[in-house]
Amino acid sequence: MKELYQYIEENQEQYITWLQDLCKIPSVAAQNRGMTEVANKVLDDLKQQTQADVQLVETDGFPVVFGEVKGTSDRTLSFYNHYDVQPEDPIELWDEPPFASHIVDGKLIARGSADNKGNLVARIAAVHAYQQVYGELPVNVKFIVEGEEEIGSPNLEGFADENAELIQADGCIWEFGYKNADGRQQVSLGVKGMAYVELSCKGANTDLHSANAAVVENPAWRLVWALQSLKDASNRVQIPGFYEDVLAPTAKDDQLIADLIYSEEETKEQLAIDRFVNDVTGDELKKQLIFSPTANICGIESGYTGEGAKTVLPSEAKVKLDFRLVPNQDPYKIVEQLRKYLDDHGYEDIEITPMGLEYPARTDPDDPLAQSVVSATKDVMEMEPTVMPMSPGTGPMYELCQKLGIPAVSVGVGNFASNNHAPNENINIDDFVDGIKVIAKVIEDFAER
Amino acid sequence: MKELYQYIEENQEQYITWLQDLCKIPSVAAQNRGMTEVANKVLDDLKQQTQADVQLVETDGFPVVFGEVKGTSDRTLSFYNHYDVQPEDPIELWDEPPFASHIVDGKLIARGSADNKGNLVARIAAVHAYQQVYGELPVNVKFIVEGEEEIGSPNLEGFADENAELIQADGCIWEFGYKNADGRQQVSLGVKGMAYVELSCKGANTDLHSANAAVVENPAWRLVWALQSLKDASNRVQIPGFYEDVLAPTAKDDQLIADLIYSEEETKEQLAIDRFVNDVTGDELKKQLIFSPTANICGIESGYTGEGAKTVLPSEAKVKLDFRLVPNQDPYKIVEQLRKYLDDHGYEDIEITPMGLEYPARTDPDDPLAQSVVSATKDVMEMEPTVMPMSPGTGPMYELCQKLGIPAVSVGVGNFASNNHAPNENINIDDFVDGIKVIAKVIEDFAER
Repeated sequence: MKELYQYIEENQEQYITWLQDLCKIPSVAAQNRGMTEVANKVLDDLKQQTQADVQLVETDGFPVVFGEVKGTSDRTLSFYNHYDVQPEDPIELWDEPPFASHIVDGKLIARGSADNKGNLVARIAAVHAYQQVYGELPVNVKFIVEGEEEIGSPNLEGFADENAELIQADGCIWEFGYKNADGRQQVSLGVKGMAYVELSCKGANTDLHSANAAVVENPAWRLVWALQSLKDASNRVQIPGFYEDVLAPTAKDDQLIADLIYSEEETKEQLAIDRFVNDVTGDELKKQLIFSPTANICGIESGYTGEGAKTVLPSEAKVKLDFRLVPNQDPYKIVEQLRKYLDDHGYEDIEITPMGLEYPARTDPDDPLAQSVVSATKDVMEMEPTVMPMSPGTGPMYELCQKLGIPAVSVGVGNFASNNHAPNENINIDDFVDGIKVIAKVIEDFAER
Repeated sequence: MKELYQYIEENQEQYITWLQDLCKIPSVAAQNRGMTEVANKVLDDLKQQTQADVQLVETDGFPVVFGEVKGTSDRTLSFYNHYDVQPEDPIELWDEPPFASHIVDGKLIARGSADNKGNLVARIAAVHAYQQVYGELPVNVKFIVEGEEEIGSPNLEGFADENAELIQADGCIWEFGYKNADGRQQVSLGVKGMAYVELSCKGANTDLHSANAAVVENPAWRLVWALQSLKDASNRVQIPGFYEDVLAPTAKDDQLIADLIYSEEETKEQLAIDRFVNDVTGDELKKQLIFSPTANICGIESGYTGEGAKTVLPSEAKVKLDFRLVPNQDPYKIVEQLRKYLDDHGYEDIEITPMGLEYPARTDPDDPLAQSVVSATKDVMEMEPTVMPMSPGTGPMYELCQKLGIPAVSVGVGNFASNNHAPNENINIDDFVDGIKVIAKVIEDFAER
């Protein structure tokens, strides 16, 4: 591989230019900006740079760019990425124009550099470099590049269902991946699921003068009463059956947890908090972060919330809740349990509107792809990566991978300070080059597992 | 009095013109529109139309117009009114321009017609008519006309404290008063007090990705937990000591309650509700409305409340609460009890910001002024008024009246459909003329009690 690594280093300017060009397109899905241009550009890049057979797969939203490069074996490795980016607001907080692709002090500063164009281009470049140095790939490679990740991937499940054969693979490299503050690469092996719901409670058909509060029921109080017993102060969800499908961490998980680094004091200082929930520290803290399902109030609103005092008896109260789920919890079952819980407590009138249901997804740490990624990372970076048994975040991994029996592993070119979704999104050029090498090494290694 | 009533009827066009002219000034205190013009106009009207000794009493906000007309006895009757009005928004819902003072089908439609210029002009007109027919008044009359009622009377307490002698009286006619749907005049003998507070609970110093909910505390949950036990579903406030100063309704109150009409079915239909709190009906319902203190959520807000889903762990949660208080509850003591309640339940970190503390105020149904108003109303309208022992609403009555030992009674020219604070605010011209007669009769009657 020395030859391949050397080729990547010698050709890094070219690969950086590919990434800069892609980052210059403001492909904001939420605002439908540059979406046709970027999809065509990704299609062309795949064709030109990797000789892939490419197609635009239409969906009810923005299309999926699909590309396939045949290899010399039956094994198939897929890459899931997305060509859309978050809006650049608040633009005044950027030090460089968000779509200028400026490189400053060894960092490429651009919206999409970390999330997710840097990873996409690193994977394209890895295939390109491998082809230049060795000719044919030892595995088939499939690129699945969607355009709606930043708006919740509303059409990805449908795409996966309709194209199960097209996207079938022996393993999938998931879209994201970061270096920790200690410089070690993080490899993660899954995502939490989610049940995102809005609860709405209605009172009188109009806001009333609050003098009526003595006789007319207040929906904000009803919502508070309904919510308060959903979860206790130890973060334990009180919905009957909520935990019944939860798989306990294995001995292997405990070992991965022990190897993880979580900067407790720095995090507390940075967030100005003096404790973590349940006063946990050390391994317990990491375990709680990764393996606990949650019930979180994302937002609550009722009545008058402006400046000063207004005496109003509100006609409606709403709350948005997200439940983060762990294997093998089922988001649809959780919504049913929530409905039953509310009914059983006299809140039949509170409406539940599901706004995003995703299954949790995990890959076994002993899976060949996980082994390949860990091994490739060690080889390139000359240090052990940290392995997260599951990310505390959520993504459509289950629909695209585990549902079809495909293991998925996250590794990528971002870092702990990449500012995804925030001003001055950036990646280190060195990490980008390392990331290309890691994928090139995985291509070689995975063929043999 | 027949001669006086006849004079008022014959000169009603003039009095209506006075009111129309005043309603043409858009005196919106919240927007500082027309405030100097209206204060000078009220000052001039009082001087020209009642020969009052007048003065503008400066405050830290808009001035109080004060006028005094000497009578032939030592007894003094005061009138409390305000020259400011609510904003006219939403203007597109008005059938007539809000400051054009158009008369349509026997109604004067104008912002301020009911709240509160109609009552002010009726009182000026009553004094004028009395003087034209009989010469000198049998009582001293004082006009206290403030300009900040619609923004919470922030300077009225200071005005009352500094001018206690100036405003001293044997009785005060309060600013508002309405006819019920059944056509009977409502006379009310007090107002509830209020403790309006905002509670604020803080978590991390910034909103976080909700993946952190497993380990970082959510201030919205803490606020929900703190709120939930403040009040139970029967509307009973759980703060220790909250009810300890509450005076039970007297036998006389029970009798007034029994005489009151409350249109239960119409109210339920109009508001699209199927029950009242605690499923009360009849006298229990009326008693609960008038004599129960309340704890009401006016508004609650935390995190993301826009369209769709956003996965956020909020950094702050706020709620606005109004406690309506009955004699002899003390709003300052209630805030202290709330503080202790939160502290005792582990919520020392939740901040309380008081936003309006007002004492409850009542006048004895057997007080001479109450007797005078009831008697005058019967005389003019030829039917019994309904007497509310206390309005479920709130106003600065205590500071201006009971604190100085002055009884206060509400009677006025509005009606149940006057749309105070809403589009198409209006009064019936007939009610306006009756209202002038009632005040003229009170002037005569009160001199002899």
